[in-house]
Amino acid sequence: MLPLFAVGQQNVGFKGERVVSPQINADGSVTFRLAAPKAKHVEVKGDWAANDGIGTFVKGKDGVWEYTTPVLPSEMYTYRFDIDGVITLDPANPFSCRDVGNVFSKFYIGNGCADYYQVHDVPHGSVTSTFYHSNAMNADRRLNIYTPPTYGKSNAAFPVLYLLHGSGGDENAWVELGHVARIMDNLIAEGKIEPMIVVMPNGNSAKTAAAGETSDNQAYMPVMSNYLGNKRGQYEAAFPEIVNYIDARYATIPDKRHRAIAGLSMGGQHTLFISLNYPEMFDYIGLFSSGIPRNDYDENPFFNDLQAKFEHLHSTGYRLFWVAVGVDDQFKLLEPTEKMCNRMKAMGMPVTFKATPRGHIWSNWRQYLLEFAPQLFKD
Amino acid sequence: MLPLFAVGQQNVGFKGERVVSPQINADGSVTFRLAAPKAKHVEVKGDWAANDGIGTFVKGKDGVWEYTTPVLPSEMYTYRFDIDGVITLDPANPFSCRDVGNVFSKFYIGNGCADYYQVHDVPHGSVTSTFYHSNAMNADRRLNIYTPPTYGKSNAAFPVLYLLHGSGGDENAWVELGHVARIMDNLIAEGKIEPMIVVMPNGNSAKTAAAGETSDNQAYMPVMSNYLGNKRGQYEAAFPEIVNYIDARYATIPDKRHRAIAGLSMGGQHTLFISLNYPEMFDYIGLFSSGIPRNDYDENPFFNDLQAKFEHLHSTGYRLFWVAVGVDDQFKLLEPTEKMCNRMKAMGMPVTFKATPRGHIWSNWRQYLLEFAPQLFKD
Repeated sequence: MLPLFAVGQQNVGFKGERVVSPQINADGSVTFRLAAPKAKHVEVKGDWAANDGIGTFVKGKDGVWEYTTPVLPSEMYTYRFDIDGVITLDPANPFSCRDVGNVFSKFYIGNGCADYYQVHDVPHGSVTSTFYHSNAMNADRRLNIYTPPTYGKSNAAFPVLYLLHGSGGDENAWVELGHVARIMDNLIAEGKIEPMIVVMPNGNSAKTAAAGETSDNQAYMPVMSNYLGNKRGQYEAAFPEIVNYIDARYATIPDKRHRAIAGLSMGGQHTLFISLNYPEMFDYIGLFSSGIPRNDYDENPFFNDLQAKFEHLHSTGYRLFWVAVGVDDQFKLLEPTEKMCNRMKAMGMPVTFKATPRGHIWSNWRQYLLEFAPQLFKD
Repeated sequence: MLPLFAVGQQNVGFKGERVVSPQINADGSVTFRLAAPKAKHVEVKGDWAANDGIGTFVKGKDGVWEYTTPVLPSEMYTYRFDIDGVITLDPANPFSCRDVGNVFSKFYIGNGCADYYQVHDVPHGSVTSTFYHSNAMNADRRLNIYTPPTYGKSNAAFPVLYLLHGSGGDENAWVELGHVARIMDNLIAEGKIEPMIVVMPNGNSAKTAAAGETSDNQAYMPVMSNYLGNKRGQYEAAFPEIVNYIDARYATIPDKRHRAIAGLSMGGQHTLFISLNYPEMFDYIGLFSSGIPRNDYDENPFFNDLQAKFEHLHSTGYRLFWVAVGVDDQFKLLEPTEKMCNRMKAMGMPVTFKATPRGHIWSNWRQYLLEFAPQLFKD
């Protein structure tokens, strides 16, 4: 006899038996199911490469539709269903994430890089969401900070990686889609990286925080053009405010040797210009599918005089300039990226350039981080 | 001429023009829209009271279905669509939340309590997700910690509210569904509460963290029976581990006078037994739609001898014992809650009892917190 009144909180909404979906099969394929007796046509659209992520379901006689993917390489994948033209999450999958303005269902294929995206029984760091005050932008601005498992357990100070999101993204992107805390915890546990702090600020000067986390709140619809309304260069020029905030409040080693900066897409472009304008600040620089300047001239001095700025960075020196881009990048970034790397090489500047499969996509950015982070703060 | 190559990150998935949904109307009603030319029947099911949250859409000639709710009182609401029997999010709404095993779309009706659930231009505190080690449970266990805006800006120490989730919930529930950081920031800015730390641990001894945040990961399907597999009383009996962890790492005032504990549903029951077994620990006790013991006898000493434990709590004293429950609680908690309060009153124990509208639902728990928090640490 259970003497206590065991109660549960109300599970508001629809009830009913669930099909199992997604079902991760032993071979690395995935079976999706949807109970939709009245539907006429059901598709899945995901971000895997095989069949461009598209699959057409077949209806079973019980009204349950089903589709099985080809075998997928290890990654985290996102997807949605198209049911007679209506785009939905997988109703049977409670795990979702927002990417820009859309919510997606998600799953993991293990036995490879996605093992780093999962929580394991290793020492865990912390993630703090907070706000710093920007005098330049006259606002409290949100940022997320990962501290490693050993942080605060002694007087030890740590190096810092500043990790920047892309257009349409925000300070939550690297945490939620990039799985930074899990990747760092797991790489530290394997001894593959130096324990480090990771700082993920909001990079849209026209916004103070992610959609829903700002005073604009739900009136702020996240779109790819979040950067519109930004005062060009304002966030990047004010970047030392963030570095100073972190150095003042966290146990950092506050010098160039112990600072890295990397970013994806728009955040790569931010990284490039922050590095070029503050050559004394970062010894490790990472450009992931980065926006690349088309030419050296601009009315804004922050973006001008690129040749002089590259030469300045060259003369002050750095330990790593690491560049990666997908060969199928939808924004045709392969060519300008190679061109910039060749220019640097011609100047005698060390640069590591990687062209990887696929395009402008989170699986690449997670995998770039897995490759970039172990190169930091080692020598 | 824009000299920079402005790029955006890939917005993986389906594209297309969006209808506006939800549209919050000036009178506090809400219009939902869904483009579904092939659908036969579309409903919304939400957690508002009017019409039990159910509304039937009407199809327009452009294939866009539409439904407008009655005027809704200020709150955050969650909802999903039923499209020919398939339960989905609102495809046009990027704002969602998970409650137990389901994902819901959400919106806010302002000009009332929901104004506290939004970010405003006030000083902001921080939220940290981390893990403490439980010797009793031999595991690293996840918890979320809110620190107020002034935390860390001087040597000031702060009182602590321990805030517990219900069955099917986890350490993220009070953060995401409870909007604790925003509520606290806003109440502090208005001078209505004392600045305090809020600690939100995971209360399922059979789990170490929320679904997706544990080493079980996506194999851990969040269900109402998360508490099954718990060793009864293990988490509650080990609660001093959490208090000690917080007192060791945070600037707390580590005494009974500066500690409060409250919980919803299963977490209310946890609160009750933690308070009864550790009467020297908390001066402020809150039970929100709480599970209530049916009788005083149990084989487990943690749950036994209730009369003696109530008498002990009475003799050690406390400053607030605050109890609220919905008159329409689905788990019929009104009667046992009143009975327990009457028992306490008969013993001469001060207790504040509130019967509120509606039932076992997050709108009540947010509103209970809005009423409970201002009573803490004042005298």
